[in-house]
Amino acid sequence: MSSSTAPVPAPEILRSRLERARQAAADAGFDALLVTPGSDLRYLLGAVGGSFERLTCLVLPVSGQATLVVPKLELPGYEHLLVDELGVDAATWVDGVNPAELAAGLLKSPKRVAVSDFTPALHVLGLRDALAGAEQQLAGPVIRELRMRKDISEVDSLREAGAAIDRVHARMGEFLRAGRTENDVAADIADAIVAEGHTVAEFVIVGSGPNGASPHHGSSDRVIEHGDVVVIDIGGSVAEGYNSDSTRTYAIGTPRDEDVAKTYAVLQQAQQAAVDAVRPGATAQDIDRAARAVIADAGFGEYFIHRTGHGIGLDVHEEPYIVEGNDLVLEEGMAFSVEPGIYQSGRWGARIEDIVVVTADGVESLNTRPHELVVLGE
Amino acid sequence: MSSSTAPVPAPEILRSRLERARQAAADAGFDALLVTPGSDLRYLLGAVGGSFERLTCLVLPVSGQATLVVPKLELPGYEHLLVDELGVDAATWVDGVNPAELAAGLLKSPKRVAVSDFTPALHVLGLRDALAGAEQQLAGPVIRELRMRKDISEVDSLREAGAAIDRVHARMGEFLRAGRTENDVAADIADAIVAEGHTVAEFVIVGSGPNGASPHHGSSDRVIEHGDVVVIDIGGSVAEGYNSDSTRTYAIGTPRDEDVAKTYAVLQQAQQAAVDAVRPGATAQDIDRAARAVIADAGFGEYFIHRTGHGIGLDVHEEPYIVEGNDLVLEEGMAFSVEPGIYQSGRWGARIEDIVVVTADGVESLNTRPHELVVLGE
Repeated sequence: MSSSTAPVPAPEILRSRLERARQAAADAGFDALLVTPGSDLRYLLGAVGGSFERLTCLVLPVSGQATLVVPKLELPGYEHLLVDELGVDAATWVDGVNPAELAAGLLKSPKRVAVSDFTPALHVLGLRDALAGAEQQLAGPVIRELRMRKDISEVDSLREAGAAIDRVHARMGEFLRAGRTENDVAADIADAIVAEGHTVAEFVIVGSGPNGASPHHGSSDRVIEHGDVVVIDIGGSVAEGYNSDSTRTYAIGTPRDEDVAKTYAVLQQAQQAAVDAVRPGATAQDIDRAARAVIADAGFGEYFIHRTGHGIGLDVHEEPYIVEGNDLVLEEGMAFSVEPGIYQSGRWGARIEDIVVVTADGVESLNTRPHELVVLGE
Repeated sequence: MSSSTAPVPAPEILRSRLERARQAAADAGFDALLVTPGSDLRYLLGAVGGSFERLTCLVLPVSGQATLVVPKLELPGYEHLLVDELGVDAATWVDGVNPAELAAGLLKSPKRVAVSDFTPALHVLGLRDALAGAEQQLAGPVIRELRMRKDISEVDSLREAGAAIDRVHARMGEFLRAGRTENDVAADIADAIVAEGHTVAEFVIVGSGPNGASPHHGSSDRVIEHGDVVVIDIGGSVAEGYNSDSTRTYAIGTPRDEDVAKTYAVLQQAQQAAVDAVRPGATAQDIDRAARAVIADAGFGEYFIHRTGHGIGLDVHEEPYIVEGNDLVLEEGMAFSVEPGIYQSGRWGARIEDIVVVTADGVESLNTRPHELVVLGE
C-alpha cells in the first residue's frame, strides 16, 4: 500500500543526513553503508516502502559516489528522489543480473561494510558472497546515532501522531462495550486511527480480562464482559512516516478483581515517576529504574515483565531502548515510550503508555489523555 | 494487526511439514533450519506475524528436539500452537539475555545451518556470531521445495482468495471514474478488498495514463482523465494467509492513444498463450517464453520489461518465478501468476494477470474475469 506522493524531507535535510551517515560510518571503521528499503532508507533518501525479493540498496561509501542499486522496473518509484541535489546516482538491473555483484562492483575492495538491520537474509548473504573479502556488520549502531536525535520537523510529526492517537482514545466509549468481541472493537479502533489523522493503523491491541495479562496479545474473538479490565495499546503512522503508540487501561463497569484499584494506583505512580525522571543527562536505564522501583517497592516487581520503553520515530520500536543495562545518556530530541505494566496472569493486566521527547531542560509528553483507569459504561 | 484467532492448519499437516522440512534440510547438507516469524514459520507452525527486534526463532535440527526460541512476553501468542502433538518445545528469554546464544546452545556444534530468507540482518548476524563455527546459508531453497507444491487445502484457500478479488474487479465501475484521484480510487478498492472476503488488503496499484507505464507504481494524487488507460493490480490475503493477485486494464471512455486497441490485442493473445502452455512437465521458462514470443513477434518485445510471473501462496511473491533461465519443471499443485504487460513510457501501460494452478493434466485459472480491455463510463 505504497503511495509515491508521501511527503519527502527537504533536500538540504537529506543531504545533511547522508553526509552525517558517511561520517558516522567512517568513525565506526566502515568503508561503506549498504541500506535496503525500510525506515533507514526513508530517513536517508525519503524513500517509502519495504524490502522484497529483488534487491534495492543504497551503496553509500564513506567517500566517493553514492549509488542506489534498483530494479529497472522499480526505478520510477525512486526517480522523484534521485535529484541531482542529493548527489545520488541510480544503477538499474533487470531480472537475470546478480544485483549483489552490481552493488559490490561500486565499491573498491572494501574491508568492512555495514548492512541495515532489517535487510532480509536473502540480501545479507547475497552481499556477503559478492563482497567475499569484506567483514559484514550491522549498520544500526551507525544510523541510530543520527535517527535517535530527532530534529524539529521530526518532533513535529511525532507530536501530530500523538495528538491523533489521543483523539482515538478520547472516543473509546464508542467502541469498547460489554458484549462485543475484541476483534470487533479492534476493527472500529483501526478505522478511527485512520479517521483521526493517521495514514495507516499499525497495530491495535485489545486485551480484555485475562488477555490483558499478555503484553503482546493482539485481539481475539473473546467477548468483553462486565467487570473486565481492558488494555488498549494502539498506534499508527502519519503521512511523514512517524508513529504514534499509546496505551490506556479501561474498565467495563466495576472491575471484578478486588486488587485492581490498589494495583493500578501503583502503576500510575510508577509511570509518572519514570516520566518525571526524563531530562538531558539522565540515562536510559535511570528511567527504567524509576518505574521499576515504585512497582517493586509495592511488591509487584515480578509482575512487571518487560522493559519500560522503546524509542519511536519512523519505526514503532527503535533506539533508545529504556531498559536496565542501557547507560546511554539522554539528549534533547530523543523520543521514546514510557510504558510500565503490571500483569496478573490469568486474570487481568494494566499498562499506561505515553510517548515523551527530551527537551532542553526536561521532558514533553506527546500524549495528554488522563492516566486514571477509565471506567466505561456497560 | 495480528489476531491470535487466525486459522491454524491441522496438527497432522504441520507434523508432516516439519518432518519433510527436516528431511529436505538433511538432503541439502544442513544440520538445522533456523526459521524466524514470517511466511515460512506460518507454513511450519501456523504462527502468524512478522519479525521484530526481539528474536523469535524455530530451531529445527535435522534430528533431535525442535524448539521455538521466543521472548517470554510473546509466548502467549504462540502457546496455542505449541501443542504436544507437534513435538515442539518452547525456550523463553527475557530482555538482557542474548537470544542468539540461547538458540545456538540448542544445537550441537553444527557445521552448516540455514536461516529463513526474510530473517532480518539483525538476527542473521546475531546467529552468525553465536554459531561462529557454522557456515550460514539460506533456508529458502530448502523450504520452497515444500511450499511451492500446494496441497488441496492450500489450493482451496488460493481459490477463495481468487474469487474474492474477482468480485472486486467486477465492481470497478463503482470506483474508477474520471475526475477522481488514483489515491481516492485506491482507498475505495482497499475497502472493497476487505468487504469481498479478504482479511487484509495487501496492495493496490492504480496506474492511470503515464503511471500505468510504471509496473510497480502504487497510487498518486493524479486525477484520472477521460481517455486514460488504467492498470488496476490488486490483492489481499484471506484468513488462512493465502493471497490473491489479479490485474485488469480499464479505459475511461475511448483511449486517447490510437495504438491501444492493437497493442492490447497482442497482450491478450500473449497472456492466453502463456496460460495455455501451463501443464505438468513444462518448465517455468517455457511459460515466460510463450508470452514473450507473442509480444516480440508483434514488435513490442522491448516494452515487456519484467518476468511473466511469480509463485503465490502465503507470500504474494514466492517460488516458482516464471522467468527465462528457470528450468524448474512444473508439477501439480504449483501456483503462480501469468501477467505479461506492455508499457509505453510516458503514455500508457497495460497488464493482464491471472493466478493459475497446475493440475494433473493442465491448468486451472483462479481468476475468471474477462480479459478484454474494459471500457468504463466517464
